[in-house]
Amino acid sequence: MNEDKLHEECGIFGIYAPGVDVALNTYWGLYALQHRGQESAGICVANGYAMDIRRGMGLVNEVFRDSLPEMPGHIAIGHVRYSTTGSSLAANIQPLLVSYAGGRIAMAHNGNLTNAPLLRKKLEQGGSVFQTTVDSEVIVNLIARSKKKNVEDRIAESMNQVEGAYCLVIMTEDRLIGVRDPNGFRPLCLGRMPDGGWVFASESCALDAVGAMMIRDVEPGEMLIVDGKELRSRRLVAEKRPPALCVFEYIYFARPDSVIDGQSVHLARLAMGRQLAIESGLKADIVISVPDSGTTAAHGFSSQSGIPFAEGLIKNRYIGRTFIQPEQKKRDAGVRIKLNAVAPAVAGKSVIMVDDSIVRGTTSGRIVRMLRDAGAKKIHMCVSSPPIVYPCYYGIDTTARKELIASSKTIEQIRRYIGADSLYYLSLEGLHKAVTQVALGGLCSACFHGEYPTEVACAKELEGSKFVFEETACAMGQKPKGRKRP
Amino acid sequence: MNEDKLHEECGIFGIYAPGVDVALNTYWGLYALQHRGQESAGICVANGYAMDIRRGMGLVNEVFRDSLPEMPGHIAIGHVRYSTTGSSLAANIQPLLVSYAGGRIAMAHNGNLTNAPLLRKKLEQGGSVFQTTVDSEVIVNLIARSKKKNVEDRIAESMNQVEGAYCLVIMTEDRLIGVRDPNGFRPLCLGRMPDGGWVFASESCALDAVGAMMIRDVEPGEMLIVDGKELRSRRLVAEKRPPALCVFEYIYFARPDSVIDGQSVHLARLAMGRQLAIESGLKADIVISVPDSGTTAAHGFSSQSGIPFAEGLIKNRYIGRTFIQPEQKKRDAGVRIKLNAVAPAVAGKSVIMVDDSIVRGTTSGRIVRMLRDAGAKKIHMCVSSPPIVYPCYYGIDTTARKELIASSKTIEQIRRYIGADSLYYLSLEGLHKAVTQVALGGLCSACFHGEYPTEVACAKELEGSKFVFEETACAMGQKPKGRKRP
Amino acid sequence: MNEDKLHEECGIFGIYAPGVDVALNTYWGLYALQHRGQESAGICVANGYAMDIRRGMGLVNEVFRDSLPEMPGHIAIGHVRYSTTGSSLAANIQPLLVSYAGGRIAMAHNGNLTNAPLLRKKLEQGGSVFQTTVDSEVIVNLIARSKKKNVEDRIAESMNQVEGAYCLVIMTEDRLIGVRDPNGFRPLCLGRMPDGGWVFASESCALDAVGAMMIRDVEPGEMLIVDGKELRSRRLVAEKRPPALCVFEYIYFARPDSVIDGQSVHLARLAMGRQLAIESGLKADIVISVPDSGTTAAHGFSSQSGIPFAEGLIKNRYIGRTFIQPEQKKRDAGVRIKLNAVAPAVAGKSVIMVDDSIVRGTTSGRIVRMLRDAGAKKIHMCVSSPPIVYPCYYGIDTTARKELIASSKTIEQIRRYIGADSLYYLSLEGLHKAVTQVALGGLCSACFHGEYPTEVACAKELEGSKFVFEETACAMGQKPKGRKRP
Amino acid sequence: MNEDKLHEECGIFGIYAPGVDVALNTYWGLYALQHRGQESAGICVANGYAMDIRRGMGLVNEVFRDSLPEMPGHIAIGHVRYSTTGSSLAANIQPLLVSYAGGRIAMAHNGNLTNAPLLRKKLEQGGSVFQTTVDSEVIVNLIARSKKKNVEDRIAESMNQVEGAYCLVIMTEDRLIGVRDPNGFRPLCLGRMPDGGWVFASESCALDAVGAMMIRDVEPGEMLIVDGKELRSRRLVAEKRPPALCVFEYIYFARPDSVIDGQSVHLARLAMGRQLAIESGLKADIVISVPDSGTTAAHGFSSQSGIPFAEGLIKNRYIGRTFIQPEQKKRDAGVRIKLNAVAPAVAGKSVIMVDDSIVRGTTSGRIVRMLRDAGAKKIHMCVSSPPIVYPCYYGIDTTARKELIASSKTIEQIRRYIGADSLYYLSLEGLHKAVTQVALGGLCSACFHGEYPTEVACAKELEGSKFVFEETACAMGQKPKGRKRP
Repeated sequence: MNEDKLHEECGIFGIYAPGVDVALNTYWGLYALQHRGQESAGICVANGYAMDIRRGMGLVNEVFRDSLPEMPGHIAIGHVRYSTTGSSLAANIQPLLVSYAGGRIAMAHNGNLTNAPLLRKKLEQGGSVFQTTVDSEVIVNLIARSKKKNVEDRIAESMNQVEGAYCLVIMTEDRLIGVRDPNGFRPLCLGRMPDGGWVFASESCALDAVGAMMIRDVEPGEMLIVDGKELRSRRLVAEKRPPALCVFEYIYFARPDSVIDGQSVHLARLAMGRQLAIESGLKADIVISVPDSGTTAAHGFSSQSGIPFAEGLIKNRYIGRTFIQPEQKKRDAGVRIKLNAVAPAVAGKSVIMVDDSIVRGTTSGRIVRMLRDAGAKKIHMCVSSPPIVYPCYYGIDTTARKELIASSKTIEQIRRYIGADSLYYLSLEGLHKAVTQVALGGLCSACFHGEYPTEVACAKELEGSKFVFEETACAMGQKPKGRKRP
Repeated sequence: MNEDKLHEECGIFGIYAPGVDVALNTYWGLYALQHRGQESAGICVANGYAMDIRRGMGLVNEVFRDSLPEMPGHIAIGHVRYSTTGSSLAANIQPLLVSYAGGRIAMAHNGNLTNAPLLRKKLEQGGSVFQTTVDSEVIVNLIARSKKKNVEDRIAESMNQVEGAYCLVIMTEDRLIGVRDPNGFRPLCLGRMPDGGWVFASESCALDAVGAMMIRDVEPGEMLIVDGKELRSRRLVAEKRPPALCVFEYIYFARPDSVIDGQSVHLARLAMGRQLAIESGLKADIVISVPDSGTTAAHGFSSQSGIPFAEGLIKNRYIGRTFIQPEQKKRDAGVRIKLNAVAPAVAGKSVIMVDDSIVRGTTSGRIVRMLRDAGAKKIHMCVSSPPIVYPCYYGIDTTARKELIASSKTIEQIRRYIGADSLYYLSLEGLHKAVTQVALGGLCSACFHGEYPTEVACAKELEGSKFVFEETACAMGQKPKGRKRP
Repeated sequence: MNEDKLHEECGIFGIYAPGVDVALNTYWGLYALQHRGQESAGICVANGYAMDIRRGMGLVNEVFRDSLPEMPGHIAIGHVRYSTTGSSLAANIQPLLVSYAGGRIAMAHNGNLTNAPLLRKKLEQGGSVFQTTVDSEVIVNLIARSKKKNVEDRIAESMNQVEGAYCLVIMTEDRLIGVRDPNGFRPLCLGRMPDGGWVFASESCALDAVGAMMIRDVEPGEMLIVDGKELRSRRLVAEKRPPALCVFEYIYFARPDSVIDGQSVHLARLAMGRQLAIESGLKADIVISVPDSGTTAAHGFSSQSGIPFAEGLIKNRYIGRTFIQPEQKKRDAGVRIKLNAVAPAVAGKSVIMVDDSIVRGTTSGRIVRMLRDAGAKKIHMCVSSPPIVYPCYYGIDTTARKELIASSKTIEQIRRYIGADSLYYLSLEGLHKAVTQVALGGLCSACFHGEYPTEVACAKELEGSKFVFEETACAMGQKPKGRKRP
Repeated sequence: MNEDKLHEECGIFGIYAPGVDVALNTYWGLYALQHRGQESAGICVANGYAMDIRRGMGLVNEVFRDSLPEMPGHIAIGHVRYSTTGSSLAANIQPLLVSYAGGRIAMAHNGNLTNAPLLRKKLEQGGSVFQTTVDSEVIVNLIARSKKKNVEDRIAESMNQVEGAYCLVIMTEDRLIGVRDPNGFRPLCLGRMPDGGWVFASESCALDAVGAMMIRDVEPGEMLIVDGKELRSRRLVAEKRPPALCVFEYIYFARPDSVIDGQSVHLARLAMGRQLAIESGLKADIVISVPDSGTTAAHGFSSQSGIPFAEGLIKNRYIGRTFIQPEQKKRDAGVRIKLNAVAPAVAGKSVIMVDDSIVRGTTSGRIVRMLRDAGAKKIHMCVSSPPIVYPCYYGIDTTARKELIASSKTIEQIRRYIGADSLYYLSLEGLHKAVTQVALGGLCSACFHGEYPTEVACAKELEGSKFVFEETACAMGQKPKGRKRP
């Protein structure tokens, strides 16, 4: 929906709760995770013997407009997927449901395997076929090829082959399994239903949505198995890896009411704003935010600096995916339809405008012009994260590196490009100060400095692969990842 | 969407602008007015000779998903209608388009005629038939029955027969007319397109959306005619009536970035919050808002009292009309899906929670419980308007009087019902202090004190009529207003 | 669907049957009448006090895909409307439902009022407004303006003002009324439900569909009232007019299993074919038909002549409205997709090809070429009706006179145009011989000879009006009948 | 749509034609094959480098309502799938598109592999996963696991592992391949486009639809490769197997205008009718058919016996999948909506009613009653095929053996069950006499006598597998084949 933002890949949810309408609770859980993906949604239910799945393109309430899976059951998993303009691939809708020698397995994945192209090639050479371009299909093929007897052993063995970022909820006919990669790139938490039963969710806000109590985060490298008898934990890898939760969860992706790895997202953003106030030392009449993502940091900036917060920009809550865009030359009009300046709030004022990040810089420039038109005297743009310079290989759609404005322009050049009177980014140190509550003690901030927590085998393929999809739109189709058209 | 709020009836938009894609601009204008009605939308275009109309159930981007009216033209009007659960009547979708002896006329209406039942009965006795239950049909029948030759005279004559609240945009094959009732109950403003051409809109935010410059508000009792030659103004009634703009436009309905009758909605809400802080004299650790409607007042409260503002509640941005609700007994869960408390922000704190109004009180009670569950120590609810005690006859869906909690309970009883530690309403005097910029100098606040600015001929019918619709749901149908089923 | 055929305007159905699911029976009745109109459908139900309506664009099973009107009731009327490419006007979907001084009235109409433009103008001058372009709206306005007290008297009075062709089913809250015009242009029959209750339908096949017994045809100029007490008959006009049932009902429109005014449609078509065999005196190897409309006549031709019938052409049963057409230059391909020759049946044979009529002649030409490609040696085209030379003003879409190939070409010229070896039309006398069972004793065959049974006041307007619609396509809109675009 | 008929599994189409809109031609081809499957449709296009696919539930014109695959290309394949009530599985829509070690492969399949369960189990034990229940997925896995380098060798090797019935169109990025099983159970023919280029289709009527010339049938056990250079033929198996084209293609499945293996379907059905007249020696007043499937045989019966043919039954052409059925107890009404007797044609007559086959017998019984109600004096039912006693394992949905009326009842018992005065089936010898033109010289008629042309490894699983699907309905889901619910 917002073409000038980074995008999370997905949200996942899983529940094991006899006596509860697990499909409906998964529906609510996915609703709470809808900000993590708006392209497609799916729910798969199991009852100990069989499975029933329903998947479709669109928002959770569009896909399940008519009905949820009708099969009664006591286990369910669900998935929401993010939306870019081009890559709407029906075949890619998760959860993935397959049968294999060990029975039936359903899987929902959040993250990105950095060695997926290698594994896929290897699997293909071993005779596997692929019908989608999602990593889940690589993983289920590994599980299917494992020589282990037990499904848990098969999963564990497979997890030792994959690299990169992955949180998984996996369902067999009679059990629910949650898995988090050894670096803990993506979040996954565990909750307890009021009358018993267990829940996995990408964010704790989904636990709140179903009335579950937050128990703890799934640990990096941990596999948790729920099968009725007990909740069993199992370590995936012997050696411990440096924890590397994606710092952008705190900056932008996660909902402010979530708590991830012990750190409140809300408090993290407030602290980023405060730190930015300290670092910038700016003086002005008012602090405003670019809603909604910059609001919490703006409040932090305001409280630290003592400069009053004002609602300088109003966001139209009804902009949907099918909105008819103005033509390119009238794009400023397009921004005015999504956002509008509150002239009485900003006219004649020097304004500190807080946003969470700058990707391409085009939207920022339009907002600055809109504020000037509304009479703002000075506009200082403050960004509550450092410049994004490097691509992400762990599941974030950072677009091509060349489209990242900070990868080719200095801060002064960016300032001039967007037309602000001044421009401040939060420092990397400042960012880390703001998230000291993170229980794991380590974060991935590679997009700012380029030092990736893991070796990335297929960096080139991973960067390239995003664009094959973006050039093609297809309602019910599957687009080749392969060679480009001549 | 929110069953515990008052609802505006409609938003209207009209444009006369040769050389401009008037259908597309009307589409954008309706987008900006979408908060005034989510049930249905329609656009009608004229080209000097003919008209083309497209109408449908749903949001603006749903109705016009595939295409806008395709006829090129230089005049257009549009309408969005509000949504209650039950009254989705396809036949009622506006604009209304009719032919009559004088040619062809299209009309979009915001407001409520208080003598509509009388006029309708009189027209029926004179041989008229009605296909809808909207006031526009009464008005076009009056216009059609006028003995005047000129359409403007016909309209003027008709306006002298109707009573109550109405803003109209009217289109003939070759002209655009904007009308506002003599009391000015509902807002209507006039803008100028950058390259010439005129725009009418319920709120100035829709002018911003199409890049038009705000010229002025249409005056109460004024008819403005645009027909290519000039912009002509005409008074509808000889005597001047006391201005009575609906004060709820400032409290809740209008978008904060709109300016209505000279008063910024944003500044009005800020002032309401400040006044509430003064009147209540409350002390607490933090001020939070019930998003989104209470947010601006909460900022005002915070700045006046010096108590820090905090984002204590998060709203799910994706709740749509087809959301599957929890059963009645699990309604608290339902609130948790729409709103969630930010525990780290409120835990252990005494909290001032600001909302714009209380209708039934059920949602407020659920939010208070949610905040207590999140650890809030004390919860003081502050409402930035006085108690709503009387029904509205001028176009606001106040539901039945008996459902208004303040019409049967004292403030102390309400406090106990919602479970807050204290409850403060803004005083009527305080409310009026907050909106002193209103150029007209008079407001309708009858829902607070019951002194209606006009005599209401059919009060009984008007109150009752809302509920005939609410008991029936019908996708493509028309439900009778008449006798109840036995 | 078939652009080279005449089109019936509509099918109508009404039922009064306490204890029966009247909405469902109306649904089945409309199904049986679907061949009379594929553009839109609607059902209106009454329960003695209130009414519920559902209408939509599309086939009966598309419009009522999700549900029928849900209100229990004991009276219902329904309507199907024919489809031309351009005139899909949502506002025109019937039944029409209005309130007026006398209460509530719903109406479905089949036919065409020849003085509708005059009446409409007169009503407009008297202050009426019109929201649609259907004749029903003219009629309900006449009813509403009648000074009579009783609804039956109002209807009777109105029927004395209208001229032309009309069969009506009319419903008030507590009664069902069937009306047929004094000439009996369009068919309407009366049936009795097995457990009591009455049914009106355009054709007897709809009585069969709901298990009703055919009682008799509604007489020309008769109004039948069903209101629970009894079935009452009333004559609309004093003088008796010459009966003039549209002969095309027998030639093409009606379903072969219907019996209209005492004449079996099946037997009529057989007799037309026999008569054609006698008149033409043709010899050939086989008789084939253009399916489905020419099939019965072809059987008659075969049995009379002794020339064996063969299935020489196969029709694709799945061609729907959204079929993607070949471009103009590839139209022959388009015909091949709808129809295909059975080469083994026709190769090397001299073929008599029977069709019911020729309108433009384009399709006939394509079929002749297709048969030649399949190896037919000689192709004799035999048409089981006379050449269509004059437009119809009584409800048949004959397109403009200039598009009727027989109005500007001799039979020899037509033969050359379609490429047949010989071409025979049934004579007018022969046609009348084939339908001698018609109880009324009179038929309208004005499209063959131009002598209309009634004076046609607005012939020019009626012919022209078809084309305003055909030039515009509009999914949810209403197109002006008025002035042309410059 | 017709629950009392056997159902073909699928129709397939493939085209290789540079300079032609291959997607549009595939669309037309599938239209012509729509009678072979109405549940879902799909088209996949290749351009030498990449592939684009579009698939969906519904008829061809519903699935491609908005657009065809947009990618320009010169190769395309398409598939239509049949509809039973319960097994609407979105994941099963073909063509199947996968990537594997050799690149990308798309496949459409008609038929049924008799050893699919075995192969699937073996593949799963080798580590394969399955996302669908279609045989195509088994075949692509075999291809992917082949050690051969060349895709043609891979296919050939795989074909030596599968048993049963299969016609395949296979597409890689740059070639089109057609395959027919060694027994030739299912039809597949080869055509040539007018300007060059090759076409494969299940039936020759699809060649006609795209203007292609019939070249010849693909031979049993033949693989034809089109890759731009030439058309190459390759034998799949060394030994020649007895040809065994499904005789039901002639009896019921194929369109009469198709020619399969040298035998015109039209002429075959005529001959069956003639033979039936000879065998039965019946005398009566008229011969009627159960439309549409019994019509050609009825004509044959009539011409042989000299008893006149009459249209005694009329079929409603508009019955679609979403038709609201009468309740069970009113099923006779349901038949009346689909079919209606032409009373004037049958009243007082002794009638020979010809149908192509009897499956359950329920519909036949209802039609007999309907004819009696219409006044038929005697009703002799004549079936243009022998009694169906054994299930089909080669791709026909024969339902469970116990539901086949002829597997548990004698002919006399069946006659009594359906209420006919006499009942005649065509003898097996008679059937074979009627299709003597079949070039292959051998047919599969195992459903009549139970002697299957091949060993059927998994007969039990194959029969059972149909019912797992039929018990579950799922719009966008995938139902487990596995264990039953407890």
